[in-house]
Amino acid sequence: MTTSIDLLLHSAAQIVTCDGPPGPKRGVAMRELGLIANGAVAVDQGRIVAVGPSDELRRSYQARHEIAAAGKLICPGFVDPHTHVVYAGDRVNEFEQRIAGATYQEIMAAGGGIVSSMHATRNAAADQLVRESRSRLDQMLMLGTTTVEAKTGYGLELAAELRQLEAIAALDAAHPIDLVPTLLAAHAIPPEFANHADDYVELVIAEILPAALEWYRASRFAAAGVPLFADVFCERGAFDVVQSRRVLAAARELGLPLKAHVDEFTALGGLEMALELGAVSVDHLDVSGPAGIAQVAQSDAIAVSIPTVTFNLGGTHYADARGLIDAGAAVALTTDINPGSAPCPSLPLVMAIACRYQRLLPAEALNAVTRNAAYAIGLGDRVGSLEAGKQADLLLVDTGDYRHLAYEFGGNPVETVIKRGAIVYARSGRHP
Amino acid sequence: MTTSIDLLLHSAAQIVTCDGPPGPKRGVAMRELGLIANGAVAVDQGRIVAVGPSDELRRSYQARHEIAAAGKLICPGFVDPHTHVVYAGDRVNEFEQRIAGATYQEIMAAGGGIVSSMHATRNAAADQLVRESRSRLDQMLMLGTTTVEAKTGYGLELAAELRQLEAIAALDAAHPIDLVPTLLAAHAIPPEFANHADDYVELVIAEILPAALEWYRASRFAAAGVPLFADVFCERGAFDVVQSRRVLAAARELGLPLKAHVDEFTALGGLEMALELGAVSVDHLDVSGPAGIAQVAQSDAIAVSIPTVTFNLGGTHYADARGLIDAGAAVALTTDINPGSAPCPSLPLVMAIACRYQRLLPAEALNAVTRNAAYAIGLGDRVGSLEAGKQADLLLVDTGDYRHLAYEFGGNPVETVIKRGAIVYARSGRHP
Repeated sequence: MTTSIDLLLHSAAQIVTCDGPPGPKRGVAMRELGLIANGAVAVDQGRIVAVGPSDELRRSYQARHEIAAAGKLICPGFVDPHTHVVYAGDRVNEFEQRIAGATYQEIMAAGGGIVSSMHATRNAAADQLVRESRSRLDQMLMLGTTTVEAKTGYGLELAAELRQLEAIAALDAAHPIDLVPTLLAAHAIPPEFANHADDYVELVIAEILPAALEWYRASRFAAAGVPLFADVFCERGAFDVVQSRRVLAAARELGLPLKAHVDEFTALGGLEMALELGAVSVDHLDVSGPAGIAQVAQSDAIAVSIPTVTFNLGGTHYADARGLIDAGAAVALTTDINPGSAPCPSLPLVMAIACRYQRLLPAEALNAVTRNAAYAIGLGDRVGSLEAGKQADLLLVDTGDYRHLAYEFGGNPVETVIKRGAIVYARSGRHP
Repeated sequence: MTTSIDLLLHSAAQIVTCDGPPGPKRGVAMRELGLIANGAVAVDQGRIVAVGPSDELRRSYQARHEIAAAGKLICPGFVDPHTHVVYAGDRVNEFEQRIAGATYQEIMAAGGGIVSSMHATRNAAADQLVRESRSRLDQMLMLGTTTVEAKTGYGLELAAELRQLEAIAALDAAHPIDLVPTLLAAHAIPPEFANHADDYVELVIAEILPAALEWYRASRFAAAGVPLFADVFCERGAFDVVQSRRVLAAARELGLPLKAHVDEFTALGGLEMALELGAVSVDHLDVSGPAGIAQVAQSDAIAVSIPTVTFNLGGTHYADARGLIDAGAAVALTTDINPGSAPCPSLPLVMAIACRYQRLLPAEALNAVTRNAAYAIGLGDRVGSLEAGKQADLLLVDTGDYRHLAYEFGGNPVETVIKRGAIVYARSGRHP
């Protein structure tokens, strides 16, 4: 007796399932990938119904479509858990200024940085915002990303923050990539509040957060059970620990799950504060020391490391992701794609950097952009691994060994991207 | 009166010509790109006949095919002037060993490194060598590379070195990318000569070099006026300065133009020796000091910098390419694509690394992978810039500002690749 299904991918040289017990993987478990040689994935109605040996699944299922994946790798679609992909304009001028020697903080102090993207985003019509962001999502999709967290934070005023949320929803509806919205109204102090930041914090708490929640409740995300996160940038020049705590505590009061940008340039105490408030993820951690690392490892938070920013700023001090894993923390990796500190759409390159400069093993890096990244955005139960019942988001990759995803760098090994059981990207360069 | 031509690309937001006086660009001239706004390129019989303002060329030429490049950048096809792209197998195991702490030199001393690729390459049938290398050239082409220097050096015995040359010729014939062959028989000391390296040097001089020259004279390269270079790896654990000088001097005696791997890990004096012998390029220079840099700047040699190796080894000390340019040297950049120290096909990523870690301006990085790279492989008169009379090798890029080629990293901005006037790659991912 065979069961009739929509799609069977079979004969893959290697399948990386990233399966395992529920909850984030920790410590040495980050090396476990659930490899299957000569494997198959059975898909029906957009969901995975079985993963296992090819000959077994070919006996058990009768598929309307088959894909022979001989010599290929099949792995979960990548999940990018921390992005600022929705913005207008670019910051290529600042890029040249930095080469000439200006620091990120100097550029920020001179009215550049986030505030410059804020002006461009405030001035952009909704359709321009969607169009410019869409081309970035296209690049990300080609590179294997199937789920993307996307933050506001270039509006920094009620109407523009809501317009960014609308753009995130419009992109989620129009693009094969699934988006997960995060309100980051506390991303920077808007210039009109330059000398009274507390008043902006008050505005975020009293108006922007409640309005965002109201927007969310009527949105496609609430309908689909996709969370709205609240986030804050706790850093010198942005929001201090007291201000950051006020924003996150207010968001928690409203029932929103939390994220926080902490310990990027300065260890202000934001990490400890965010963990205390039960943040789902704590992001950056570039300057976290052993005490902070131990606290993350004892928490349920996912540690989201962002090697692209160090790379982009020409830095040599990377977050101690090795130390985090060794201490037992669950680490995720992200592009942080944004116009200033990380104009990078590629999770394969992020893996490559992490393996070289943070000493992650290729297996750890792969778990960090799949399963752990899914848990970092509250979707660990539906994406990030190849298991029966999960969404059929998966990649066919031009190699029979997952380690090549991180060993090679700068190219694109992804051949086919499947989202909810449908091919949404297939490489097909023309060579006449 | 209009002239009839094959192809007119017009209405480009920006054209980067990289034109200028003959000879390599030096010092501040590396910042000059010859930009044309709203530009056009006229192509006939595989060659450029004119580059200039769009309205002017549209009046002067009647083209059988037209490509409207509104909003796009047109620049020369990239030239990768130092590669080991022809090999069999991979070294992904060593990649994991290095993450666990082994150094490149330790792996080399333990029989890994180049010698491991030598075994794989010696054992590979000619068609396997071509097939595996071809897929790498496909990745390079998608990323905008249209001309590639390719070295032997995984044979390390007469027959296998000649088989590598044959593979280079076969790839040149079969693939849209043009290849330029380099004999690097003195890449490593083959294990059978472990305790008597001088005998291998003698073999290279007495047999391999003359046989390679004989092969070359009957090859498609000689017929096309494409040079055969001779190269040597002058480094502790490879060939010392005396041995390296013997190889290069013998090659020069045979009339071959010279290259040399020098100052990569150790400044042995190879740089000075190679300049004295009139090398066309001196490659690596990671540990060259001010005296060496000044000598390069006073020479006619192109300085080929290889930031991928530093990146791949997780290093933080990059070659002083900024110092080289400031001293007046002509710098080129390369992927060095090879299975051990740089499994990287992407010149856009090389530019991105060089801008961030070597402080090259985007304009300098772009000249370094076009015009200067062409001069580094003896083809400065036919590729590397958009000028009347040159080969019509050019790229359409998804941006109106060349700086985006280096500002963004990890993605692929190249939309269309044109080689000798014909479209050889056009991005066309399927989004059903």
